[in-house]
Amino acid sequence: MPSSKMNDPLVYRRVLLTVDEDDNTSSERAFRYATTLARDYDVTLGIVSVMENDDINIFDSLTPSKIQEKRDHVKQVVQDYVKLAEQLGLKKVEALVYEGGDVDDVILEKVIPEFEPDLLVTGADTEFAHSKISGAIGPRLAKKAPVSVIVVR
Amino acid sequence: MPSSKMNDPLVYRRVLLTVDEDDNTSSERAFRYATTLARDYDVTLGIVSVMENDDINIFDSLTPSKIQEKRDHVKQVVQDYVKLAEQLGLKKVEALVYEGGDVDDVILEKVIPEFEPDLLVTGADTEFAHSKISGAIGPRLAKKAPVSVIVVR
Repeated sequence: MPSSKMNDPLVYRRVLLTVDEDDNTSSERAFRYATTLARDYDVTLGIVSVMENDDINIFDSLTPSKIQEKRDHVKQVVQDYVKLAEQLGLKKVEALVYEGGDVDDVILEKVIPEFEPDLLVTGADTEFAHSKISGAIGPRLAKKAPVSVIVVR
Repeated sequence: MPSSKMNDPLVYRRVLLTVDEDDNTSSERAFRYATTLARDYDVTLGIVSVMENDDINIFDSLTPSKIQEKRDHVKQVVQDYVKLAEQLGLKKVEALVYEGGDVDDVILEKVIPEFEPDLLVTGADTEFAHSKISGAIGPRLAKKAPVSVIVVR
């Protein structure tokens, strides 16, 4: 079983943390894990949220100004997390805000190819409001993502 | 969103690595991640494998000596990983070999309550031979486990 490579440390260098607007324990713990890792291993940390914008059932009643308001809110949530990470002394933190169809698809098809993380960090209860697919995003990404995924509880 | 606890580091202290008999890339990387973590944070590392023994379709044709042979093989696999971890300088490594019904259930209902890990580490392609449930164990545990789970790729 053991090859010689088994002796090499495995350290993640680009970590992507998914955040939603909700304030739950697992999101908090995911943030703490991601920032601990970033601090201890000098990691580049991306903090991402996704605004789903093509669900006609949700957005047909929204005016452009309401949509802009929602967009600003998602940006603010990500910015708050980034600020907090910077207050912890992290130097390499990037805010990422995406819009698109289904959250899973946006993360798999846009965010991961563009940010190129080697580890995705998500809270076990992280859900995206208005997501067409209900339930926590972490276990689904753990199955489908092409990179390592940690689901934090 | 931010509470004052957000500033606290989150470090895992008891890490459980699942291994199977197969020699695949994701298992190797899972081992490397688990041992890196164990070394850098002085973690207690459990290395576990499960032998499913109640699947009548598989075992009805096996003699007691064949079953013992299989049991010895699983023990040997775990022991090899433990030895390798100790060669990396880790002091707190425990070999865990379980038998029982379905692998997921054994891990969720026996291994986790007894070892009490705060993080489960598994390779994305880690499967258990003869498991009644096909496919990789990691994403399923990421969904069902009561503790954090990292699926390593």
